[in-house]
Order: sequence, then C-alpha cells, then structure tokens
Amino acid sequence: MSTMKKKIKISIQGASGYTGGELIRLLLNHPLCEIVSVSSNFNSGKKISDIHNDLVGDSDLIFSKEIDKNVDVIYLCSGHGKSSAFLKSTKIDKEVRIIDLSQDFRVDNLFEDRVFEYGLPEINKSNILNSNNIANPGCFATAIQLGVLPLISANSNSKEIHTHAITGSTGAGLKLTQTSHFSWRNNNVSWYKPFTHQHLNEVYKTIEKKYNINFIPIRGNFSRGIFCTSYIKTDLDIDFIYKIYFDYYKDHPFTVVSNEEIHLKQVINTNKCLIHLKKVEGKILITSIIDNLIKGASGQAIQNMNLMFGLDETTGLKLKSSIF
Amino acid sequence: MSTMKKKIKISIQGASGYTGGELIRLLLNHPLCEIVSVSSNFNSGKKISDIHNDLVGDSDLIFSKEIDKNVDVIYLCSGHGKSSAFLKSTKIDKEVRIIDLSQDFRVDNLFEDRVFEYGLPEINKSNILNSNNIANPGCFATAIQLGVLPLISANSNSKEIHTHAITGSTGAGLKLTQTSHFSWRNNNVSWYKPFTHQHLNEVYKTIEKKYNINFIPIRGNFSRGIFCTSYIKTDLDIDFIYKIYFDYYKDHPFTVVSNEEIHLKQVINTNKCLIHLKKVEGKILITSIIDNLIKGASGQAIQNMNLMFGLDETTGLKLKSSIF
Amino acid sequence: MSTMKKKIKISIQGASGYTGGELIRLLLNHPLCEIVSVSSNFNSGKKISDIHNDLVGDSDLIFSKEIDKNVDVIYLCSGHGKSSAFLKSTKIDKEVRIIDLSQDFRVDNLFEDRVFEYGLPEINKSNILNSNNIANPGCFATAIQLGVLPLISANSNSKEIHTHAITGSTGAGLKLTQTSHFSWRNNNVSWYKPFTHQHLNEVYKTIEKKYNINFIPIRGNFSRGIFCTSYIKTDLDIDFIYKIYFDYYKDHPFTVVSNEEIHLKQVINTNKCLIHLKKVEGKILITSIIDNLIKGASGQAIQNMNLMFGLDETTGLKLKSSIF
Amino acid sequence: MSTMKKKIKISIQGASGYTGGELIRLLLNHPLCEIVSVSSNFNSGKKISDIHNDLVGDSDLIFSKEIDKNVDVIYLCSGHGKSSAFLKSTKIDKEVRIIDLSQDFRVDNLFEDRVFEYGLPEINKSNILNSNNIANPGCFATAIQLGVLPLISANSNSKEIHTHAITGSTGAGLKLTQTSHFSWRNNNVSWYKPFTHQHLNEVYKTIEKKYNINFIPIRGNFSRGIFCTSYIKTDLDIDFIYKIYFDYYKDHPFTVVSNEEIHLKQVINTNKCLIHLKKVEGKILITSIIDNLIKGASGQAIQNMNLMFGLDETTGLKLKSSIF
Repeated sequence: MSTMKKKIKISIQGASGYTGGELIRLLLNHPLCEIVSVSSNFNSGKKISDIHNDLVGDSDLIFSKEIDKNVDVIYLCSGHGKSSAFLKSTKIDKEVRIIDLSQDFRVDNLFEDRVFEYGLPEINKSNILNSNNIANPGCFATAIQLGVLPLISANSNSKEIHTHAITGSTGAGLKLTQTSHFSWRNNNVSWYKPFTHQHLNEVYKTIEKKYNINFIPIRGNFSRGIFCTSYIKTDLDIDFIYKIYFDYYKDHPFTVVSNEEIHLKQVINTNKCLIHLKKVEGKILITSIIDNLIKGASGQAIQNMNLMFGLDETTGLKLKSSIF
Repeated sequence: MSTMKKKIKISIQGASGYTGGELIRLLLNHPLCEIVSVSSNFNSGKKISDIHNDLVGDSDLIFSKEIDKNVDVIYLCSGHGKSSAFLKSTKIDKEVRIIDLSQDFRVDNLFEDRVFEYGLPEINKSNILNSNNIANPGCFATAIQLGVLPLISANSNSKEIHTHAITGSTGAGLKLTQTSHFSWRNNNVSWYKPFTHQHLNEVYKTIEKKYNINFIPIRGNFSRGIFCTSYIKTDLDIDFIYKIYFDYYKDHPFTVVSNEEIHLKQVINTNKCLIHLKKVEGKILITSIIDNLIKGASGQAIQNMNLMFGLDETTGLKLKSSIF
Repeated sequence: MSTMKKKIKISIQGASGYTGGELIRLLLNHPLCEIVSVSSNFNSGKKISDIHNDLVGDSDLIFSKEIDKNVDVIYLCSGHGKSSAFLKSTKIDKEVRIIDLSQDFRVDNLFEDRVFEYGLPEINKSNILNSNNIANPGCFATAIQLGVLPLISANSNSKEIHTHAITGSTGAGLKLTQTSHFSWRNNNVSWYKPFTHQHLNEVYKTIEKKYNINFIPIRGNFSRGIFCTSYIKTDLDIDFIYKIYFDYYKDHPFTVVSNEEIHLKQVINTNKCLIHLKKVEGKILITSIIDNLIKGASGQAIQNMNLMFGLDETTGLKLKSSIF
Repeated sequence: MSTMKKKIKISIQGASGYTGGELIRLLLNHPLCEIVSVSSNFNSGKKISDIHNDLVGDSDLIFSKEIDKNVDVIYLCSGHGKSSAFLKSTKIDKEVRIIDLSQDFRVDNLFEDRVFEYGLPEINKSNILNSNNIANPGCFATAIQLGVLPLISANSNSKEIHTHAITGSTGAGLKLTQTSHFSWRNNNVSWYKPFTHQHLNEVYKTIEKKYNINFIPIRGNFSRGIFCTSYIKTDLDIDFIYKIYFDYYKDHPFTVVSNEEIHLKQVINTNKCLIHLKKVEGKILITSIIDNLIKGASGQAIQNMNLMFGLDETTGLKLKSSIF
C-alpha cells in the first residue's frame, strides 16, 4: 500500500438510492479510494447525510446534478434502463472504468465499443481483471448462481432446479408502494413474479439454459438479506459434492462453504456468500445466503473494482459487527 | 336480544382508511348491526376486500362514491378537517346518529344544532347514553386519560405529568411516507411532535388545564398498539391509589387494572385498556396500554354506539386470539 | 340455538402451552361452551392470566393439576407422545369426546376402543360429524393438504410436488431455545428438517403416497402464520383448475379461494385457509395460507367440536380485527 | 503506524457472550491488534464460529478454558460480579492492561493496586490515556451521560432530568428468558426497573448527585440500539445550547451533534453517539442514540484501548454499512 501514489477517484451516478448509498457507506472507509462526486436528479444541492442519514458526521459530500466524469471509475446506480440511457447521452472518456449496477448490460453486454464483463468474480475473475466495464450481477442472480454453479458444473441427474429465495425489503428499493409500507410488510410474507423473475435471464446466460430453474422469489419481513434454497436430484455423494464446492471456491475469499446449518444473519453486513449443502433422499439441498446490498450489489461492485485495479479483492470490504 | 326487531343500519364514510377498515372488520361480526354502505373517494366501485384484503370471503360490500344516508348511524372516517367539511356539504337527517372518528369535534363540540359528546365511556357514559353525536377520542388521548384521570381526580403533590407513549405504525395511517417505509421503520425508533402533539388539546379540555402534561410520542417498530407511561409526584400510598383506580373503573368492562407488570401485546386485538401502577421514590408510575385501532379508535366508536342504542357496551367487541 | 339447554362442558389438558392458551382464548367467547377445568403440570394453582397474560380480566380460571373428566369434551394439548400416555394412565368415560392436538393419533388412529377421525373438515366432514374422537391435524399438514388436495384429486401430469412453507415462531412452542431467542430470530430466516418434517406422515396417509412431496419448512421472523407454496406440473387449464377448487370448497366456510394474489396477513387471527392459484409455464403454483395457531391448531379443533355437536361449524370462530 | 513493530496482543475472558463476541467481531479487523486467546467456561474446545456464527470463515480461534495472560490487554466480559472474582482468583502481571466490561469497577474503582479509570472518553480522555485499567461504561449510562453532561455542566433551571430509553434485546444478553423469547418480544414493548436501573449509579458518580434522573428503561422489539430522550427545564437559548454541545464534543470523533431530527438506525453498527437538541416550552429535549453493543460496550472498550496505546481513537472502529 505504501507505494500507492494516489487514490482511485470515483463518481457515483444516481447516488441517492439504496445501492448508491451503500457504495458511499463502503467507499468512505475504503483505504485506497476517494469519492469525488455523487449525483442525484432530485436531491442535488443536498448533503449526502440528508438522504443517507447514517452518514451524518462522516462526510461533507453534496449531491450534484451531474457527476464529475474526470475520474477513474464511474458507478452507475440509476436503475434499470437508465444506465444505457445515461451512456447514450453522456460522453465518457474511454479510460474511465464503468461499473453498472443495473441489469442493462448483464445479458447483452455491448455498448458501442465498451464490452461489459459479468461481474461475478467467483466465475469470471480473469476477465474482470482485464476489463474496463463491469455489469454487476443482480442480487438473486448472485445468490442462485453461487449456490448451484459448482454442482451443475459437476453434472447431476436432473435438469430441474427448484429454487426459493426470501429477500429483504431493501431489494425493492426506496420507492413507496403498498408492499413497502411498514404496516403492510411487518410480519407479512408474499411472493412476486414466480418462475419469471428477470434475474433468471442472467443466470440462464451463465448456464447456457442447460437447466431449468423453477424460481419463486419471496418478500420477507426484514430489511437486508437473501436466503436462497435450491435443490436438485443427484446421485453424487455428499462428501464428493462438498469437495467440489470447497475446490470451486478455494480461491474466493468471500464465498464460504459451511458444514454447519446456516441462517441468514450470518452474512448480514458482510460481502460473504455462505453456502451449506445437505443430501436428503436423492436430492442435494443447497442453501446460499448473501446480504443483498453488499454481496448482492454494492459490495460486489467494489470487489470488482478492486480486481480491476489490481488490489486485494477484500480491500475495504472487511467491515464487520452485526450478527444481531 | 331476542326481542330486537331489526338490526342497526350503518354507513361508513371514508371507509378505505385504517379506522374505516377496522370498523368494517368489527361490525361484520357485530350481532346487531348491518353495514348498509361504505364510501371512498378513490376506491368507489371496488370490493371492500380489494382494499381490506383480510375480508376476502367475508362480505360482498362495494365501496360507493357516497354513503347511504338513510341509516341509523353514520361513522365519519375521512380524517381531520374532513368531517366538518362533510357535514357542511351534506344534509343528514337529525335522527341519524353520527360518530366522528376525526378530531373535528373533540374540543369545539358544536356543529349547527348537533352537540358532539366526547366518546370516552369511562368518564362520560351518562352523556353518551343520551347523545346523538359522538366525538370519538384520539388514540393517544385515550391511553393518556385512562391512565391519569383517576389519580389526578384524587389529587397529587405535583401538577407536572411526564408521559411517554410509543405507538405502532397504524397510528400514522396508510399514507406512504419516508417514516412509514418498511426499510426505514423496521428496527427503528424516533419521536415526533414532542410536547406539542394535537391530542393534548382534548386531554387538556378534560382536565381543564389543571395539570401540565409533558408528552413525548414515539414511533415504534410494530403495527398496532400504544404503550404509555405517565408519572407524577405523589404522597399517596400505593394501596390507596390502587383502590382509587379499582373504584374508578369498576363499572367499565374494558378498562382493567392489573397488579402485575404489563406488556403491550396483552391488549392487542382487544378493546381493553390495561393499567398498571407502581410507586417508586415518591412517584407513581402509571402504565396504560391500548390497541390504537380498537380502543384507540374503531372499537371505542362501536362501544359508544352500543351505549347510544342501549346495548351491552361489550356487544360485538369480545373478539380475541392474538397475544402473539 | 335457542333450544340449546345447556352449554358444552370442556376440560383442557396441558393448557399452559400455546395451543392450550389459544383454545382458552377462543372458547371463552364461544357462545355455547363453558370451560370447566384447565390443567398444567407446572402451573397448577396459578391463574390462567399469569401464563396467558392477555386474558387478564377475562376469566377467573385457575390451572389445576388434573383436569375434571366429568365433561363433554376433553382437549389434549400436552404435546406429542403425551396424549397417548395420558390416555393410558387415565380412565375417561366413553361418552366424553376427545380432541387431540398432538400427532399421536393422526396416522395410527386407534387407541383401545377409541377411533380417532382425522380432523380436517374439508375432506372428512361426514366422519367428523359422527365421531367421538378427533386427531386434529398438524399446522403444516393443514396448509399443504388444503392447498394440493383438490388438484391431485383431479389428477396432474406429475407425481412431484414442490412445497415451501414459512412458519411463525409460535409453531415452535414456548420452549426457550437458541432459535426462539429474539436476538437470534429477529430479521432472520433458516430452514429445519428439510424433506423430512413429521407432518408429511399425515399428508401421505391422506394421499396414499401417490405423490412425492418435496417439502422445506422455513422459520420466519414473525409470530403467527404459515405461508405455503406448492407447485406441480400440469396440463390442466387455469380456469378449469379454479373451477375444481371452487367446487371442492364450496361447502366449507373457512377455506376461501381467491383470484387475487394473497399475502400472509390476510388470514392472521382467523380460522381461514386462503388459497390462490397461478399457472406459469406448465406449472400450477398453489399458495395456501393459514394462521398456524387457529386453522392450524386450536381454531380447527373447535371447528371439529362444532361439527361433532351439530353446531354451525363457524360458531365462536368469527372473531376478527388484525390485518396489521 | 508504519513504525509499529508488533501488534497489540489480546485475550478476551468470557468471550462467548454478546460483548465478547462483539469484541472479536471488531478486533479481527483491527489493523493493529491480534487476538491471542478467547476463553469460555461452557464452550471451551469449540470454534468461535460455533458460537458467533457470523465469523465462519473469518478465524480459526478456539475457545479455551482459560485465557492466555501473557498479553498486552485482557478484556473481561464475564458479566457483573465475575470480573472482581476473576481478578481475585487469578494472578495478572501488572504490565497487562485490563479493560473490564462489567459494572464491577465503575463506581468503586479500586482493586488492590489497580485503579480503574471510567472509560467514557468524552469526559475522561486524559486519564484514560495514562491508565492501565478501564471500567468500561454501561450502555444506558453512555447514552444518558453523553446526552446530558454538556447541558448540566452549563447549568440549568431545574435539578430534575426526565429520561426514557428504549433498548434492543441484545442489551439483555443471550440468556433465554420469557422476555427474550421471540414470540413474546416480537411487536411488544415493556419497561423494567423504572427509576432504579443500576446504571444510574455510575451516572450519579459522574454528576455527583447534583441532579435527579427520573429514568425509565424500555424493552424495544429490535436487536440493537438505545434511543434515549432526556428533558430538563432551562432558560438557556437553543442556539447557545447547541454551541455548548458543539464545543463540548469538538475533539471527540464519535459523538456527533445534529441539527436534524434523528432516528435510531443512524447509529446502528457504528461507534457513534448521535445527539439532537430541541427546545420546546421552556424545556430542552436532548435525544442521544447509540448502538448498545458498540458505543455502549465493545466499541467503546476498543476506543479506550486505542487511547491507552496512543493510537488514533478511531482505529479499527470505522466499519460501516447498515442503515437498514
């Protein structure tokens, strides 16, 4: 670190939403980064702590109408459809790295002469290292893929995967809707978009549609986290499957395979994906859990940036506390 | 009951909000009532279960634009300021009883030739019995008054009452705001309107401003209920104070005085007010708890109706289940 | 009802647990019942409100060491294994009806000369009407069966059912364990007994093992309710399936089929099972939701009692309030 | 820092509880510390992640029966009464610093030749810098004192302070009790030890009993945090009071005074104390909020250690994420 001459300069476009706020929260303490500008259509002129209240006392950043484009990295956090619109209307120097947190470039990954690499380091690290543009994965897509990819790469007896994932309310963003109202959601459970959630598109791209994923997303009554279970028929032995998973993730510091049963809060406020495996009656049950805002969004985006800049991928992402 | 010839016919104006929905919920099972019409500005034409989803299968009522005024009782649930506006613009037959759940007539209780009685049965039952119009108390006002009135009627050594009350999210209605967003309110606590909450007005009317109430309302991270503590200096003996309270409420079936320490969920989903007393270091600490939507609003409104029609005041209000 | 000479006399054995408490809560307001005695090994001598705190002011019942057996109905609430032990050690007059809330007689339904009918009224009403002994179904078993039975009776293209069900903490009883600790469970999610939950036994008895149910039970961070999804491949048309369900439940007042998407809180504090159907990509997704303590336990037990005594099956079970 | 030859060696006694776990969580990422040993009476031989599940993959530490005493700092986390017992029965080298998280030495701060400094850096930093032994403050005591000390040092018109504080469940430790059961505490509120909470003792020591604090501690239905309000009569002008507070805390990085209204989650997962001031009707309302496990316990303990060792007091305490 001591030889590092200057910090990575960063702009965050659309920084008043949840993923933008989370990026600020994490990057303010990243030892090798400096946030240069944060933009917001509706909140320009306000202090970041006016919107992200926990940052009071931590920074004097003010939302601007437009980001400073003379930086090393631009994070795009305006939401689906808006990243491509932004790139169309804005000239960005080729040298500037872009990390997009929307779904705009996860499947069709070309924009003019920019190629967006799919930013799931556990399966795509070598390409990320050499990339200038990252399509950061969706939260469900992260939890599902990290759960099932090792197994399906080892082949199984069935092409049918059965996946349920319960997500926290932050997955739905800060928009005020009936289902985000506290009186409604407190102590409540419901599903949405069963079998058709848009994150399946990026998963199918990765697995080349060789498997069918029956996926039911559930709204949970908590703020952070995704608890994902996937099962599939297999004749493989549980010890062998564990070995596959340990091998698959041995060079990936954030994805941890546990022999013990796991529960969602183990990963809250971390960039970890925690995976547990259990074989019952000819089926392997894979449980994979993440914090949807960190490993499922902004933490993974920073992990990708670290890789792109040749840093240790855990830099600035070892924050802790919070199991409760 | 067997001699009752016909049911009380009811219209509910502004029935798509929380207090209106709660009235429907309770009145559908009231053995001596019939809901004739429910109105809503924004939801006319919809089934009540489209808005109050728990009522699916329970009723075929449809929201109309305007209520049927040819009924025995009209409940006004449109909110503060709108009840007086409604009465100004709408001709209601004198015979029709009006129970207003807004604050419009709690302090200034006259509207043309209608006199609104303050609908707190524990202190005003005889007037309610003979009344055609009820100003139903506010939720905080109910919890505070039932807590402190017996003591201050017995006199104390101080004129300063110190009151905190933590309320559930339903107290803020169904409006979508930052502080009603699940991601914000889950696990959160905050205050609002410290020392100046509008419910103090009706309390001061009752106690004729002989005491000063230092009142801090707190937003809790739960849906239903008010947990209210009030303390005041006193030389009175605790046994004597308990006697005062037992006497004060001996003819009031819903207000229960408990020697045991109490917790909020004891009254959720009931029309009870539960009161506990504890003397420490020259102060009496009075804890009073209610369900803000039942005893703090719609349940008490029905209790008032029962009294106005000469019914047992508990009729239709003995529902239970839910301590959890 | 007016010809009813005397109330049904009731004893509740093991009445200090959750299902016992829920029975008391419901039966205190049942118009045709009288609770004669409630027993508890550990709490004999205490008032019921010492244990079930919400009942303060509602009843003077005291827990006894042993129940009064000279009654019309005995509810057994001591838990799994203890009902058969109780019957072995205790002489009960043949005339006395027994409703067992444990799993002891759900699969093997004979005890000496007593035959226990499986108490799921939607599939077994005629037998319940003539029965003296009821094995009350498990909570998960209720939600799963009411969800899938109409479809599988109509036949489908697959024998594989995929079921997830998220349950509230009351499903685990009042035992203090790590997973029932608030600091642990608040905002947390986890599974238990995947594919092997004991409630499958009674479901398989009903469906004669013609289908395989892949069932994952999930611990949710709320107190009451079960949110259950089941899907199965089918060629049947959605309108036809809806027709099957409407027909199947047309004479069952508590099981309601809804065209609208549903969410857990719609049934909390009711004896309803609410069912929604959705066809996607050759699969029918059946969502079935109940309150685990009411339709999943004590409410259904009372429904069975009502049937056994020739009462309207909804008697005493129309309580409401609580969507929030 | 670059000249730092070796890391601070640390042992944590009683490390399986909440404060011990929180210390581990924080110290694992402290750049200048090394945890050498962690002890537990009941869990010796287990991995720390067996007890503190979120640490899976983060450390190979094993609980031992007894701590290694050949270290730079020993943290005592066994609970009230057990720290003094430990010191009586265990020979600790004089050079070894002791930071005690119990209340044993907060009021009577002498143990043999060890003098325990009260570890509230905002009022005692100079003594902490030179100390070998710290009595780490209680969580309520921290929130109350940081809230009121600047004002009462400036004098007010009254000697009566009225304080309410709502605390998360982790404040009660990991013991399984009725009030820590999820089914009980979810959506519930209650008080305990009104006017007599033991943390008042250390507060009174600081303020030399010149004021009377009327303190009601409330159990909230969340896991982390203390939301504390204190009010007191004063003639001082609000701008002047703000100036007093800004001055008082200007050299204290973790205590932040905010002109904006505050809510509990702003400080969760931080070592901050956030303070807001509002003047209404001759009273100053001081709101002070902390994370009970960090600033209210283990974070403050590390802050004290940093000071004792001449480090920047924020070292290792700038973790973030989590407003939701």
